[in-house]
Amino acid sequence: MDDQSPETLAPVIDQLMDAGALDAYFTPIQMKKNRPATQFSVLVQPADRDRLAELVLRLTTTIGVRYQTLNRTVMNRDFETVQTQFGAIRVKVATFKDIAKRTPEFEDCLAAAKHYHVALQDVYQAVYRKLD
Amino acid sequence: MDDQSPETLAPVIDQLMDAGALDAYFTPIQMKKNRPATQFSVLVQPADRDRLAELVLRLTTTIGVRYQTLNRTVMNRDFETVQTQFGAIRVKVATFKDIAKRTPEFEDCLAAAKHYHVALQDVYQAVYRKLD
Amino acid sequence: MDDQSPETLAPVIDQLMDAGALDAYFTPIQMKKNRPATQFSVLVQPADRDRLAELVLRLTTTIGVRYQTLNRTVMNRDFETVQTQFGAIRVKVATFKDIAKRTPEFEDCLAAAKHYHVALQDVYQAVYRKLD
Amino acid sequence: MDDQSPETLAPVIDQLMDAGALDAYFTPIQMKKNRPATQFSVLVQPADRDRLAELVLRLTTTIGVRYQTLNRTVMNRDFETVQTQFGAIRVKVATFKDIAKRTPEFEDCLAAAKHYHVALQDVYQAVYRKLD
Amino acid sequence: MDDQSPETLAPVIDQLMDAGALDAYFTPIQMKKNRPATQFSVLVQPADRDRLAELVLRLTTTIGVRYQTLNRTVMNRDFETVQTQFGAIRVKVATFKDIAKRTPEFEDCLAAAKHYHVALQDVYQAVYRKLD
Amino acid sequence: MDDQSPETLAPVIDQLMDAGALDAYFTPIQMKKNRPATQFSVLVQPADRDRLAELVLRLTTTIGVRYQTLNRTVMNRDFETVQTQFGAIRVKVATFKDIAKRTPEFEDCLAAAKHYHVALQDVYQAVYRKLD
Repeated sequence: MDDQSPETLAPVIDQLMDAGALDAYFTPIQMKKNRPATQFSVLVQPADRDRLAELVLRLTTTIGVRYQTLNRTVMNRDFETVQTQFGAIRVKVATFKDIAKRTPEFEDCLAAAKHYHVALQDVYQAVYRKLD
Repeated sequence: MDDQSPETLAPVIDQLMDAGALDAYFTPIQMKKNRPATQFSVLVQPADRDRLAELVLRLTTTIGVRYQTLNRTVMNRDFETVQTQFGAIRVKVATFKDIAKRTPEFEDCLAAAKHYHVALQDVYQAVYRKLD
Repeated sequence: MDDQSPETLAPVIDQLMDAGALDAYFTPIQMKKNRPATQFSVLVQPADRDRLAELVLRLTTTIGVRYQTLNRTVMNRDFETVQTQFGAIRVKVATFKDIAKRTPEFEDCLAAAKHYHVALQDVYQAVYRKLD
Repeated sequence: MDDQSPETLAPVIDQLMDAGALDAYFTPIQMKKNRPATQFSVLVQPADRDRLAELVLRLTTTIGVRYQTLNRTVMNRDFETVQTQFGAIRVKVATFKDIAKRTPEFEDCLAAAKHYHVALQDVYQAVYRKLD
Repeated sequence: MDDQSPETLAPVIDQLMDAGALDAYFTPIQMKKNRPATQFSVLVQPADRDRLAELVLRLTTTIGVRYQTLNRTVMNRDFETVQTQFGAIRVKVATFKDIAKRTPEFEDCLAAAKHYHVALQDVYQAVYRKLD
Repeated sequence: MDDQSPETLAPVIDQLMDAGALDAYFTPIQMKKNRPATQFSVLVQPADRDRLAELVLRLTTTIGVRYQTLNRTVMNRDFETVQTQFGAIRVKVATFKDIAKRTPEFEDCLAAAKHYHVALQDVYQAVYRKLD
């Protein structure tokens, strides 16, 4: 994308997410004629591809959208809740074969950090302390 | 690409475009051994793939070229011309279903900006003023 | 910054802006040991430097903050309002010697785009049409 | 990848290379919620895909791995050795149709540069002088 | 830096660190003539400036080095050791006014992760669990 | 810079260089509100600062320009010419204390590469072969 300002391009990530995209992100690239441009990538469920491709055409200056089908190896996801001095925080539990990962839920941590006036990483550390 | 200097890599974009590539761009990446490297991407018509892959091998230090086939959803494109205080400027008109986008042609705007000694965005704004 | 996750670093821009910073931004960098890191820059009024430097130490994992004094050449800023088919939009008017620039206010354009269900750049173009 | 620090992500490139990946690199990206994040890409032989995808799940915070199959056009590779004032340096000779490229082997050049206390590019230039 | 390959530039970070630099990093930039280049930044103690500037001139292709003096607000640093199921890990304790931050030492965590065949973030989490 | 498209920003590098700037480059950055923006940096002789700052205000959408004075350690520069199978190529010779660096002049190499239909790095290597 080289003919849209960053200002007008930025809100499109949220609009795609609100419309059902799995994820969306920008990659800084360098195009012809020395243009400091941005590549806009959107991950969608195959069933949403045409609908979300059309939304990109509607919301940005681009003339076309390139797409491809990818495969995924995904871990199983579940949720736990831990009690910390900053309140209850949900933890995402991901498992795959013998791998197990627990990571604190960002939105819960952010809300707690604001409520208790502490740094976000203090909340994260409080959660880690409760994980075995 | 981690064994070619930016200086010798830069002209390759133009050479690929002159040879018929649809688009070409650089993406800054970070490779092993702490190398601040560049990924070189070229978009080509399928019929040109072998010819342009060979050109990349000829013009750069790379030992191999990776490729994949992509699909595109593209808007219909047509051209209009608008008269502004900076002369005649072509406008690209893209349509798809109920979406219509008009964007000024860059090369026309640049030439007008240089001729009339104004900023490029002044020419763009003059064009927008003529679009309904 | 190489020891903080993007997730915990991202909200810090808004917190610094809310606390009175003039601007704040991230620059992707590559640090030693092959770390894909981020440089965090904050622009502040000189009188706010110590207060905001301390806030960065509080909100991030960094051990120190580097700072320097810069000078600025700034245009004069004023506001106008234009009436478009998408409602009233404020326009920032910047002047300096014989240079005059008018740019639509982003927040007004975004609100109008959402209200009228149009692309953001359609609102911008509607504003440009009203500028002489 | 937006929930892992650069510090903990950086060693993963070497671990993937040691485990048999063909190449691995980071791309700076910008994700939702203003996250200055990193995309981690790994190139592997098809037969290694499941094993190395699992290794990524084990070594990083990611919940899933996306993958696709690519094709390659690769030059033929052979090795020569040249004698320079900095000792013997291997040179990679790549050929494809009428294209021939000779590039000095990095590790040999680095070792020679350290041994003779010269800049790395001085060793490279010494090698170029020996190539016809 | 636009006339040096990433391959030959990468080792310079370590060489500057070994020679006493406080820190060194690369920033991807886009220079004239469409060059995907790299900015090389080095942080040094003022007394080391001339010596390390000369080292950069010696080790890279650059013709000149730009420098400026910066100020720093730095937290007080001390070390603690915690015992985890992965052995003893040093923790950096940074304090400034009422701010206190504890972060595990990277090299200790990396060594423990390799020795116990676990992911690096598992070691970090084990350390966080021991911090109050 | 977050309110100008890459397309309209790109020509400004050349315009600044034509007006006497020593160098100009773009750095990809991430600004507030998730904007994938660009930082525009220009290096100028102190005597040109006001004139070129005004030119940036004229040619871009920016409202202000920040500046600072830097110092430089610069090598002595001279030119030599070498004869290669691709014609005469100028070589920049840079010296400082006991450091001596010879690098081929880019524009000469590019012209020769086009004239003889060879890759740019073949011309560079031909030049290196002639340097002692």
